[in-house]
Amino acid sequence: MTGLLTDLYELTMSAGYFEAGKSAEWGTFELSIRRLPKNRQYVIAAGLEQALSYLLELRFTGAEIDYLRSLPQFARVGAGFYECLREFRFTGDVDAVPEGTVLYAGEPMMMVRAPLMEAQIPETYLLSTLTFQTLIATKAALIVQKAGGRGVVEFGTRRAHTPEAGVLGARAACIGGCIGTSNTLAGFRFGIPVMGTCAHSWVMSFSSEQEAFRRLQDVLGPHTIQLVDTYDPIEGTRRAAALGRPLWGIRLDSGDFLALSKQARAILDAAGLPDAKIMASGDLDERRIGELVEAGAPIDVFGVGTELATSADAPSMGAIYKLVEVNGRPTAKWSEDKASLPGAKQLFRFPDHDVLALANESCPPGAEALLRPVILKGQLVEQPPIRKVGQADSLPVLHSDALTVLIDQIRMERK
Amino acid sequence: MTGLLTDLYELTMSAGYFEAGKSAEWGTFELSIRRLPKNRQYVIAAGLEQALSYLLELRFTGAEIDYLRSLPQFARVGAGFYECLREFRFTGDVDAVPEGTVLYAGEPMMMVRAPLMEAQIPETYLLSTLTFQTLIATKAALIVQKAGGRGVVEFGTRRAHTPEAGVLGARAACIGGCIGTSNTLAGFRFGIPVMGTCAHSWVMSFSSEQEAFRRLQDVLGPHTIQLVDTYDPIEGTRRAAALGRPLWGIRLDSGDFLALSKQARAILDAAGLPDAKIMASGDLDERRIGELVEAGAPIDVFGVGTELATSADAPSMGAIYKLVEVNGRPTAKWSEDKASLPGAKQLFRFPDHDVLALANESCPPGAEALLRPVILKGQLVEQPPIRKVGQADSLPVLHSDALTVLIDQIRMERK
Repeated sequence: MTGLLTDLYELTMSAGYFEAGKSAEWGTFELSIRRLPKNRQYVIAAGLEQALSYLLELRFTGAEIDYLRSLPQFARVGAGFYECLREFRFTGDVDAVPEGTVLYAGEPMMMVRAPLMEAQIPETYLLSTLTFQTLIATKAALIVQKAGGRGVVEFGTRRAHTPEAGVLGARAACIGGCIGTSNTLAGFRFGIPVMGTCAHSWVMSFSSEQEAFRRLQDVLGPHTIQLVDTYDPIEGTRRAAALGRPLWGIRLDSGDFLALSKQARAILDAAGLPDAKIMASGDLDERRIGELVEAGAPIDVFGVGTELATSADAPSMGAIYKLVEVNGRPTAKWSEDKASLPGAKQLFRFPDHDVLALANESCPPGAEALLRPVILKGQLVEQPPIRKVGQADSLPVLHSDALTVLIDQIRMERK
Repeated sequence: MTGLLTDLYELTMSAGYFEAGKSAEWGTFELSIRRLPKNRQYVIAAGLEQALSYLLELRFTGAEIDYLRSLPQFARVGAGFYECLREFRFTGDVDAVPEGTVLYAGEPMMMVRAPLMEAQIPETYLLSTLTFQTLIATKAALIVQKAGGRGVVEFGTRRAHTPEAGVLGARAACIGGCIGTSNTLAGFRFGIPVMGTCAHSWVMSFSSEQEAFRRLQDVLGPHTIQLVDTYDPIEGTRRAAALGRPLWGIRLDSGDFLALSKQARAILDAAGLPDAKIMASGDLDERRIGELVEAGAPIDVFGVGTELATSADAPSMGAIYKLVEVNGRPTAKWSEDKASLPGAKQLFRFPDHDVLALANESCPPGAEALLRPVILKGQLVEQPPIRKVGQADSLPVLHSDALTVLIDQIRMERK
């Protein structure tokens, strides 16, 4: 993992820490959710596996260091800093919440404690990878909830913000409750179930729809899903039904899904195929899926692309990575609309509320400490197992007494 | 580049083409813009460089092929297909519009002509990489236009949908007119100007703001941009002004930018620093930038993050990849809301309108043929130079007579 995949200021600051003789100072950074994404009551944390791999594998090659040396911003930086980059390893400690954890506004997802430079450089990468997967897992959870027990498959790689975002988005979607993805590489890398059979081009490549359907059965057998809407969805369903088994079912990809799924169900049943399933895909989101489920559309599986792969209604969230402690001294920022809270933290979850506390407080009875050690002295301790996402309620987030005292104290000092 | 980074159905269809004895059939696929993104009158094509690298480097490893063999969907597929994957090379032809080209709804960005399987597998990757960079280049063009001559720098990697999307988004933003990016890897890979100096953590890591400012000057010299709003932006500006040169200028990252920039300008001027610049960043988009410029805010450079890196108001667009010809036979899809137009195409641009035509039509006088050969028989012909994005108007897109005749003819045949 290249150390250059970060904002330039992380590197100019690192050079500055080095030149200012602060290499030995330790900082604690808190990665937390300042604001929930639009239309969300909570988020589902995801992306920890990739964040940890990055920290463990972060390096600078000779060519990358030469590039930095060539930049005007580095003209005054001495050779010692580049030597330091050549030897760069993350040697700090990381606490994080397990993937699949429900989090609310103001709550930390990760604490990073390391020599200032080692904790500073990862800021950009950690925010991007954790925020993105969290957005997708959260959107998936909303969609899955509205699907009321019917399966939801992630279909959105072509709309993802780069193909790699498609792979990681598929992973996050499954953390949020999807039953599988169309992304083959996500299946290969993460062992997620992969799904999909054919596109309209398959049907169009044959001189008749019937031949296309028959040929698909030849190759896919009981996994065949006939895509019926290339020319006319009802005609297509009749042709698929007439060919019969082997068949998993049909896929509707356009039109009025409620009316079409009812007609398709009737055609399949009349043809003696009551076990043939109906999948719907095409411009679906949690709202449309909720409406279809409520209206009793006989759809067994929903394929969701664009809306899920881009978290289209809320494509970003205000996660921040803030310095909360330097060499044991708590720090905070007071910008009017962007304040941060001082001190290394822990998050305690009670059945009906959360308590944001300082890291050295002990876990109160009846609570669970959500931040767990995942890296100690640069070594992986434990990759916490992914939590199963359940129904989530909005919970109040309180501050512990010790945190409240610290906030007041730091605020007084600044005045 | 792994061939598995695609939707599973591209691979099951490929197996199907092989098993159906269609390996030798050639297909032409058209990648075009079905619908413009929300709030857009046009798009700026981008991402061609990555799309071509992918096509030229697309391969399947032994482990990847073994993975496919292990999937239930491939249980009936014979050994010949896997042999074919092992030898896989893209051997077809590709025409594309240069990056930076303005395109309208219904217009093609790329035509891919190859044996069916070779043209089918790339669908997912091509759509994702071209659509994403096109979205970002388009958003950048809108923002740059509203900035009315002041510089716009891309600052959004931490909000991008994966760190890699940050790198490619930075590239696309510069195609759309940004003067640089904070993404260091984008600078290293693509030679884009990189910018940035320090974050709030820098200021907080020192015991006083003044010391933090002085230390930044020590390391960055004339490239120093003092971030003034960690505690109080006006106090911060006074401190920066008191320290004086070397200094590029200051950065405001929160608050009322109009009022603050005017006060900051006065403070800097009074301190004899009329050449010190003011940068503003934080929750900016084209609307807010337009308002600030119109109100005469003395801001020299805008840093734009979230809104640009995610194309937040329009995070997706309806690009499609449709089979338009098989072995010279034109094909089309008639789904009610998702029809496609038959035949391999060319796009002619006149000063006041575009004409969508068939690929074999010759370029009319006064027009430019926008689709150019970029890959021939699997070899790179030319990477067309990136066009400079100018002011774009909404132009009408007409169909050539030959295309109109073909559409009618195919429609008749279907009936």
